[in-house]
Amino acid sequence: FPGAGHVAFVGADRVVKDGGSFGFGGSIPLEKATGAEVLLAFSMNGQPLRPEHGAPLRVIAPGYIGARSVKWITEIHVTAAPSDNYFQQGAYRLFPPDVTADTADHAAGTMLGEIPPNAVITTPAGGAVLAAGRTTIRGYALGGAEIARVAVSVDGGKTWQDAALRASTSPWAWRLWELDADLRAGDHDLAVRAYDTAGRTQPEDLRQVWNIKGYVNNAVHRIRIAARP
Amino acid sequence: FPGAGHVAFVGADRVVKDGGSFGFGGSIPLEKATGAEVLLAFSMNGQPLRPEHGAPLRVIAPGYIGARSVKWITEIHVTAAPSDNYFQQGAYRLFPPDVTADTADHAAGTMLGEIPPNAVITTPAGGAVLAAGRTTIRGYALGGAEIARVAVSVDGGKTWQDAALRASTSPWAWRLWELDADLRAGDHDLAVRAYDTAGRTQPEDLRQVWNIKGYVNNAVHRIRIAARP
Repeated sequence: FPGAGHVAFVGADRVVKDGGSFGFGGSIPLEKATGAEVLLAFSMNGQPLRPEHGAPLRVIAPGYIGARSVKWITEIHVTAAPSDNYFQQGAYRLFPPDVTADTADHAAGTMLGEIPPNAVITTPAGGAVLAAGRTTIRGYALGGAEIARVAVSVDGGKTWQDAALRASTSPWAWRLWELDADLRAGDHDLAVRAYDTAGRTQPEDLRQVWNIKGYVNNAVHRIRIAARP
Repeated sequence: FPGAGHVAFVGADRVVKDGGSFGFGGSIPLEKATGAEVLLAFSMNGQPLRPEHGAPLRVIAPGYIGARSVKWITEIHVTAAPSDNYFQQGAYRLFPPDVTADTADHAAGTMLGEIPPNAVITTPAGGAVLAAGRTTIRGYALGGAEIARVAVSVDGGKTWQDAALRASTSPWAWRLWELDADLRAGDHDLAVRAYDTAGRTQPEDLRQVWNIKGYVNNAVHRIRIAARP
């Protein structure tokens, strides 16, 4: 209908706050909601949806923060503006690193929705001690826009090599990656960063994305490992 | 129709390459093409479109690289895959910083489309000499996703302040910003970086985005100015 801009969901889980009570809720833009990837799910892996996953009906909004995939849906509204639910308007906002709990103006933070590109090293684990020589570094990457490239460093970010990407199953699914590296004996600072199809990548330094709520931290993932002779 | 994924455009401007001749062309995803912001334009500012702007008919695809806003349209195709035109498949691909003209595999680069967040300081100009004291720093920001925040540094990136944003006229229009700063006498390294609604920002260092084709450079914009006593 004219003016429709967002689709808002309300769930059955009650929230008690400031003396009132309301259902958890949130919204996504209409343009996102009408994408083929956004689902109202009533089953999973061929089985009826289980209560802890949001039965009887939940949203799946891939590429968006999890809070927008509202569970136990009781209401769906097509609206002009984003949901007026506390979890859309008050919580889940991103603040600059210098904003503290005392100075935060919750109307001023960025209302979160789409997620930034991110990547994680899953193998080896941080602190692992490996045999020097050939090893395979593995992990996953994901983002609100499709991941196009993953670069890995074994020298703390001085040089980077492109990882091999497994086939894409969906623009919003985890993109698995791996890199064969030859590690000399000694300590190694491993790092990974993903790039999306617009060339957007992750910040080098956690301090660039630090925020009081701890949201959407996508600083380059770094681990230290040791290789013994 | 089933399988439709992209909308491809061909223009009347002929390209002679490798002994053949073809029209300049490119494509955008169907999801983008059906957005209200994408236009087939035949007029501009109430006047018929002029030849240099693509008359009689051109694409306007805001938030995408300019090459996808094909001018002088002669053909439109709805296709399963991106356009097979050289300017979609061969040119306008993004390579990592270490790829050279000799090593570039053009099928491996990232096919460009949506643009990353970017921001420019327009006032003062680089190299300007101002009177010390209060001055207003101004510029614009833009991106494929809406700009949510612009941060400005007057100390080379050590500290950042949020700029005031003018009202948004469209998620894809230039977002004008300004910051009042108090500059002591001496040299000042000014820098600006934009953040989009997913919290994505610009790389700190040009070396992170350097590429052989010179595409989509969105490293933090830096200028040096001087303030005299």
